[in-house]
Amino acid sequence: MRPELLERALSLLPRPAAHPTSLQPDSVQEELGRLFAMLRDYPIRGGKGIRSELLLASAAAHGVQEGTQAWESALWLATALELFQNWVLIHDDIEDDSEERRGQPALHRLHGVALAINAGDALHAYMWAAVHRAGVPGAMEEFLAMIHRTAEGQHLDLAWVERREWTLTEADYLQMVSLKTAHYTVIVPLRLGALAAGLVPDERFTAAGLALGAAFQIRDDVLNLLGDPAKYGKEIGGDLLEGKRTLIVLHWLQTASAQQKDIFLEQMHLDRPAKDAAAIADIHRWLLDSGSVSYAQAYANAQAREGIRLLTETLQDAPDPSAAARLVGAVQELASREA
Amino acid sequence: MRPELLERALSLLPRPAAHPTSLQPDSVQEELGRLFAMLRDYPIRGGKGIRSELLLASAAAHGVQEGTQAWESALWLATALELFQNWVLIHDDIEDDSEERRGQPALHRLHGVALAINAGDALHAYMWAAVHRAGVPGAMEEFLAMIHRTAEGQHLDLAWVERREWTLTEADYLQMVSLKTAHYTVIVPLRLGALAAGLVPDERFTAAGLALGAAFQIRDDVLNLLGDPAKYGKEIGGDLLEGKRTLIVLHWLQTASAQQKDIFLEQMHLDRPAKDAAAIADIHRWLLDSGSVSYAQAYANAQAREGIRLLTETLQDAPDPSAAARLVGAVQELASREA
Repeated sequence: MRPELLERALSLLPRPAAHPTSLQPDSVQEELGRLFAMLRDYPIRGGKGIRSELLLASAAAHGVQEGTQAWESALWLATALELFQNWVLIHDDIEDDSEERRGQPALHRLHGVALAINAGDALHAYMWAAVHRAGVPGAMEEFLAMIHRTAEGQHLDLAWVERREWTLTEADYLQMVSLKTAHYTVIVPLRLGALAAGLVPDERFTAAGLALGAAFQIRDDVLNLLGDPAKYGKEIGGDLLEGKRTLIVLHWLQTASAQQKDIFLEQMHLDRPAKDAAAIADIHRWLLDSGSVSYAQAYANAQAREGIRLLTETLQDAPDPSAAARLVGAVQELASREA
Repeated sequence: MRPELLERALSLLPRPAAHPTSLQPDSVQEELGRLFAMLRDYPIRGGKGIRSELLLASAAAHGVQEGTQAWESALWLATALELFQNWVLIHDDIEDDSEERRGQPALHRLHGVALAINAGDALHAYMWAAVHRAGVPGAMEEFLAMIHRTAEGQHLDLAWVERREWTLTEADYLQMVSLKTAHYTVIVPLRLGALAAGLVPDERFTAAGLALGAAFQIRDDVLNLLGDPAKYGKEIGGDLLEGKRTLIVLHWLQTASAQQKDIFLEQMHLDRPAKDAAAIADIHRWLLDSGSVSYAQAYANAQAREGIRLLTETLQDAPDPSAAARLVGAVQELASREA
């Protein structure tokens, strides 16, 4: 994220030496300092800041100019969006039992599950402090809707893993993605940009965001299988180890041989540490050879084109046409990213 | 909690059949229904509603009358406080790996850790919807401060368990309790009652609430060792099995024989399932025989007296003196409860 957003985020968080009561015994101070360091850890590790950039680009397209009070509000909303991303990642990493985040061990692997859940909850509350600070009417409702849709999508994703549920259609997967990814990655950032300008968000952002959200997530699923490890921040093939449903896998399951399907389902019924590396490597290769990766990439490309068409249409009468063009360009770039 | 608060809480939560988009495939609808049932589970199990009652009693003492718009706001704040309690308990039960909650299996024991963390996060957001609904200036800041202090206290409690840290003073313990219990149980409910009345909360509520919070928590620690199992909702001796720090244990450690101390620390270094029931029973008896339970009870009584004195003083010029007297009476009853 932008340095000025990180700075704002950190300014809301307590500093190890700055706890309100000075009467605390030393060992307590020291231990609270560990909590405060945990709150800062993920934000400091950095992140691409894709969502906050979309929000700021949308604010600009809606006529918000840098240096104004409305821009200041947009910066606080963008900070809140980054804090959202960070507390959600702390909890996601526990839920998926991920090993790494942004090149370092996941927070719960450093401090244990209990302390990491608690730190995520505290960071969640600091996100609301940033929303409050922005003082933008309607923004709280956007964040509430965003958290609810994201939690619903996350529930589907996790429940399917938990129940070893593989009898899913592509429509099931797309519904999960629209809830889990599209709202917080695209729809809400676009809407918040309008609200920061004091405007009612155009309802057509929803359709554009649903298409673009699907495009981004499927692109990410593709990169997870064939990305360049040097550019892609996460483990290549990690989705297979975590047993994630993807459009690629659901498409492949329709054409795979009975034997391949058996091996696949057998591996997916095992917990991550019990999975067989050789079998996972075989499955990885079958997926690449099957044409299902190309199918998914083509689907993502079509969704990206449709999303950009809808977005361009929606922004046709945007208060700042050149900023609107920059927003569309940024979205286009995201849809073809390689990391 | 009061039926009218439960009703309000449930009115904010989605119903299994009422999800906004009707385009969802059936299996998705069904799975989301499971999430929505998880959100309702703890609230429906009931709870004493101690904190929401304190808030409403404080609102009445500050002159808010039933049936008014201010009372309506107080009810929404009370609902938010109950939702706070419920999402925190979902996460606490995971953090402590508790088996039961309100006589039924803890949520994560029914649905797994991942889905329960996610449900707690969603319920956290619905709490903010209730705060927002109340529309009381200053209430958001109270909830932010409450979550932060509670998370800090929870961090201390969990970190000490995690690190097997027993070289703690009574002051360390009291600091943990003031963060973990006093704010959300007493200070914030009292302050929110004033805010619902449109008044600035008296700063002296903090000192009163710190004393009362300590009194309530230590009373709970005592009941955990010698409560009547028929009245006390939790397992007698459960704190020993969970390795919780209490004033009783920290006091006893100062006078225990070297041999008793060794046995105690040995047991406390073991995870719950590895603890020896006979040794725990011995420790339980040593604590009861040591005089440390009486010491803690006397300390709690002194804190309760001091807290009630401060509260009475603070409410001296309360807008509604008879409601203020009822508030003090309710606090007095809580301080001498047996369950």
